[in-house]
Order: sequence, then C-alpha cells, then structure tokens
Amino acid sequence: MKIDGKPHRTIWPAEGGDAVEIIDQTKLPHSFEIARLETLADAAHAIKAMLVRGAPLIGATAAYGMWLAMRADASDAGLSNAYDRLYETRPTAVNLRWALDAARRKLGPLAPEARPDAAFKLAGEICDEDVGINRAIGEAGLSVIKEIQAKKKPGETINILTHCNAGWLATVDWGTATAPMYLAHDAGIPVHVWVDETRPRNQGASLTAWELGNHGVPHTVIVDNAGGHYMQHGMVDLVITGTDRTTRAGDVCNKIGTYLKALAAYDNGVPFYVGLPSPTIDWTIADGVRDIPIEERSAKEVTEMTGRLPSGEVATVAITPETSPAANPAFDVTPARLVTGLLTERGCAEASEEGLLKLFPEMRQAGED
Amino acid sequence: MKIDGKPHRTIWPAEGGDAVEIIDQTKLPHSFEIARLETLADAAHAIKAMLVRGAPLIGATAAYGMWLAMRADASDAGLSNAYDRLYETRPTAVNLRWALDAARRKLGPLAPEARPDAAFKLAGEICDEDVGINRAIGEAGLSVIKEIQAKKKPGETINILTHCNAGWLATVDWGTATAPMYLAHDAGIPVHVWVDETRPRNQGASLTAWELGNHGVPHTVIVDNAGGHYMQHGMVDLVITGTDRTTRAGDVCNKIGTYLKALAAYDNGVPFYVGLPSPTIDWTIADGVRDIPIEERSAKEVTEMTGRLPSGEVATVAITPETSPAANPAFDVTPARLVTGLLTERGCAEASEEGLLKLFPEMRQAGED
Repeated sequence: MKIDGKPHRTIWPAEGGDAVEIIDQTKLPHSFEIARLETLADAAHAIKAMLVRGAPLIGATAAYGMWLAMRADASDAGLSNAYDRLYETRPTAVNLRWALDAARRKLGPLAPEARPDAAFKLAGEICDEDVGINRAIGEAGLSVIKEIQAKKKPGETINILTHCNAGWLATVDWGTATAPMYLAHDAGIPVHVWVDETRPRNQGASLTAWELGNHGVPHTVIVDNAGGHYMQHGMVDLVITGTDRTTRAGDVCNKIGTYLKALAAYDNGVPFYVGLPSPTIDWTIADGVRDIPIEERSAKEVTEMTGRLPSGEVATVAITPETSPAANPAFDVTPARLVTGLLTERGCAEASEEGLLKLFPEMRQAGED
Repeated sequence: MKIDGKPHRTIWPAEGGDAVEIIDQTKLPHSFEIARLETLADAAHAIKAMLVRGAPLIGATAAYGMWLAMRADASDAGLSNAYDRLYETRPTAVNLRWALDAARRKLGPLAPEARPDAAFKLAGEICDEDVGINRAIGEAGLSVIKEIQAKKKPGETINILTHCNAGWLATVDWGTATAPMYLAHDAGIPVHVWVDETRPRNQGASLTAWELGNHGVPHTVIVDNAGGHYMQHGMVDLVITGTDRTTRAGDVCNKIGTYLKALAAYDNGVPFYVGLPSPTIDWTIADGVRDIPIEERSAKEVTEMTGRLPSGEVATVAITPETSPAANPAFDVTPARLVTGLLTERGCAEASEEGLLKLFPEMRQAGED
C-alpha cells in the first residue's frame, strides 16, 4: 500500500540487489524506519525481535533469510544451519516453518552454486503468492461491501469496524482483514474504519491506524470497549477481522476481544466477516473453544504501556498498582454461529464445515479422517 | 475499607476539627496522598480537579464544602455564594446538586451563628447515609454470592468480574459494585475479582485494583478484551458492575464496555448484577439505548496514557499516530434483558419496571405519569 503517496510492500530486495529491506515495525507508529538485512543473522534478528510480525511476513522474511544465508555459504552444512537458525526464531509460527521447508525442498537437490539465485527467486515467488492471496481475499470482501453499499443512499459512508492488525503490515501487501478496505477505498467507495485499539499490545492504535492513515483511508481509533455502543446506534455497517487459526467448523481464533465484538455484531444484526488465507484453516479440529489452547503472554503487556513522551522520546510507563497481579490471554475463540462469512482467496464461505468444503472440496477427505 | 490494615473512609473530619481530609485520587495508584481541605476554595478545587470523583463522594465533599464556607462567612450572601461556587464545579453531577439543595434547605432558615454547626452535622449525616446505602447494597449482593457458593464445592473460589470503579473510592465507604465483594471477603468467603482495566481512563487498573489490594481482596487485572474468554471457560461465576443511571425498565447506563461484558455473560449463562443506590434510577425514561444521551469525552483520553516511568516519575505518553483521529464515547447502555438483577439498598430487584416497582412501590405513580 502507499506511504507518502508511494506504493510499498513490507519487504523488498534493496536497490543494487545486495540486501533485503523491511519496515522496522517496532518503531511504529512513532517513527518510520527502514531496516536493511544483509546477512542470515540480520534476518533471524528481524524475526525474533519482531521488526517483522504477522504470519505471512514472517514466512517471506525467512525465505529471504535463506537467500542471504546461501550468498555467504551455499554448502549443505550452510543450508542446514540457515534452516535451524531461522526456525528457532519463532518456532510456533506456522508460515515460518512452511517457508523454510519450501526452501529446503527447492534448494537441497541443487548444486551449491545454483542455490543463491534459486533462493532469491523462491523468496520473490513466496511474496508474490502472498500478495495474490490477500488481493483475492480483498475481492471477496469488496463484493460484500458493494452489496452493503447497494442498500445505502448514494454517497453514504460505509463504516467498517476492525480489531487488531490483520493489515498490510502483517503480510507482504494488502493484508487479510484490510484488503477489502483498501480495494473499496481505491475504487472510490466512501469507507470509514473504526479501529479498535486492541489492548494489550495496541496493534490497532499503533499499526492499523498507521497503515490506514498512510494510504489515506478515513479512520477513527476507539477503545475496545466502544464498538458495541456504535453498533447499537447503527454506526457500524460491517465488521472485518483477521484470524490466527480457523477450525473446519468455522470457529475463529483471533486476538483477544474478537469474541466480544462478534457478540455485539450478532446482537445488533451487523454482519461479521473474517479474512483468512486458507492455510490458516486447521482441518484437524472443529470445536475451537474446547480444542484450541490459548497462549498466556507476559503480564507486563497489561501492566505497562509504551508511547511517545512530549519530548518525542519513546518511553514505557506502568499503569497498575505495583502489587496487583495481571493475566494476559492472547487470543479468544469466536464460535462459527456468530460469523457471517469467511473471506478466503477462493471467495466467501459460510462459517461451517459444509461452507468451507464447498470452496475447498479437496479437503473433504482430510475432514473425514 | 482498609489501607495498610487501618479502616478508612474516602472523606473525614480532620483530627482537631478544623478541616476535612480526603484521599487525593488523582495520585492513585502511583502514590497514596491525603489532601486537607480548609476552605470553600479547597473543596471546590477538590471536586473540579477530580481529587474526589464518584457521585456519592462528590455530594459528600460538597456538603463538607458548605461547612467550610459557613465557618468563614455564615451570612445569607455567604450561603448563596458557597452554593454557586460548589455547583459550578461539576454542574452535571446529580448528587452534587442534591447535597447542595439539602444544605441550603437546612441552613437557610437558621440564624447565621447556628449555620456552621448545622452544616457540619448535615455533612456527617450525608456521609453516614451513603455508607448505610452501600452496605445494604452489599448485603443484597452477599445473598447472591452465598447462593452461588452453595452450588460450588466447599472452599472453591468464587470468581467475580467487575468493570470500571464503582468502588469504595467512588463513595464514602464500601462502594456499590464492590460492597458485596468486601462483605463476602470479610465473611471468609473465598472471592477473587477479575478487574477490567476499563479503557480509556483505566479506573479499573488504577482505582479498583488499588482499593481491592489494600483491603486484601485477591484480584487480577485484565484488559477489557479478556472477560469473554474467561466466561467461555467457566472462570467467571458472576459479574457485578455499577451504573450511572438506570431506567425504570431496568436498562443500565454505565461505563463504556459494560454492554459487551453483559452480552458475554448472557451468552455463557453467567449471572450479571448491577449495584445501584435507588437515587440513580431515572423513573422518567424506559428505553435507555434510545433516550440516554451519551457524553463524548476528549480524544486525548484514548490517544494518551498516564503511568509511572521506571524513575517513579508520573508521565503521559501518546500511543497513536499523530495524525489519527480518535473518538471517546464515555458510557454505553446495557438493555435490561441482559441483566440478571439490580442490587439496591432495599434488596435485589428483577431488571424490569415491575421488578423495580415491587421494591419501590411509592414510585408507581411517578412511573405512570
């Protein structure tokens, strides 16, 4: 999407072809800095220290990390070392493993001297594939937005609420939940986005607001508590969120608080959509509330908050009494019954096993195992 | 309730009888400081600058402010000036006006030399009445907690979720939503409180956590997004919140986000109670979503956050992009259909017009006007 009017991706080969560049997302929204990755160590650091985050972008960064590694040491030992080094940065990230496996499969059979070019080509393909998937999700969402627009007065604003950052910054471009918003905005449809701040890590207030603002999409930051009130008063036309994992029955595991917004949407007849690339569907489980273990993260994410001091310096302040404990479940599960539709790269599916299998018939057997 | 093991109220006559003392709540939870009010100007400042907050405590402070004023100038002009000066500090606070009217009614007919003592006595009575009301609300809630306890294994913890601060600090003692928790804890019932941080002003993370911790009630601070997840997993036995205004039909206007917790409680079969002194019932309206105007507060409450720097110094940081707008509705309305019961000083009422009229039959005519 655009920054200062110029199209950007979140990761790209540097001019001159001797490095990869990324947006250092740890600095957002307080400053926009580009980081240059020249070595395997640079790529591993970028993933581990969360200069890049979001499953698709982590996968893309790992793929370029393999290229950087092959330039320095394209031997079998070098390949194996690069795989291990990148894998251990965030071992639970599914796309990371997927990208590394793809690289090993492609590069392993090749002669060492052919590996650097092949790794570079593969990384580019992985990026382009992600962009294609997100754009397709965006097209599915755009159809939904156009249907809603058709029921409104000409020129009337369409208000979309989103939670967390399933945005351009979490992918290579477009984002999953945000792709429909960018496509609608670029098509001249008057959209306005309510951005949930998304405590405790504030990905909405910091990342989603930043990326929408840079692309020029009208938006307003609200606390996570406010969405229900706006839905009660007809000020939300639809909700679109992302997901970390969706069960074959259509239960959606996403950032903590998503479930509360889905309840409010259901209570007020507001359609609730989820943007998801099909690899995030977990065909092995159906009941998400029962079967998805929820990561408990550091209490410090709740008890502290980072921002800009009036001096411009970035600082972290403690917001709770020193002796009060805090708990921090990172995700919750929204039951399929609250989800209007799942926006995939093959179109919009009903949030049910039958709905998903209609779009992904090749999974019918896996689901029946 | 207790601070460092010693019983406290939020406002009390200073030893020696020549001033009133309050807890400076603007300093919580980062430091515990007592402020001394010696003059009408001190009292007016304490209300306006929110050293005291919460409707009942504002009323009590205004009543003591009338005493401080009468000590300096007990003439008719002095009385009238004190009324005006205190009234304009927070003109929309219902209890403020109520306390000032009571003082003017009581003091007006008296000779000037009798006014200081009468004002002092009245302020004490207003405080004691508030304590009595909250304790009675607590008894109503304690019955509910005991019923829930009876269905659990002996010794099993009862998990209560609360939103915002309808606590001891908002009243003279006990609080509305918190009175049942303190009574249960003091009676040896093992309660644990999930404290919603309550963005944007963080009254849960700063005030409720602080007061529960000082009294020794086990509690855990969570982000506002987390409660639904805990309810899905059987980790919340009941919800108790306060309210700013309740309609005669039982719709509850309370801090923004209360509605989302009520939806989650309903979806998971968790009982949802609201503690309220009967003067906060608005018998003139029924439909809260339609008829209660919602205050829109400063966007800065959303875009900035105050806390302790590692140095101990209190600082405010900005957490959103500089160019992103924010919106800040302060309250929402929870429809009566989601409310299990209203805990009043006359016992627990069903959240409906009939339920309320059963406890307050003298209002039957007002409701039918």
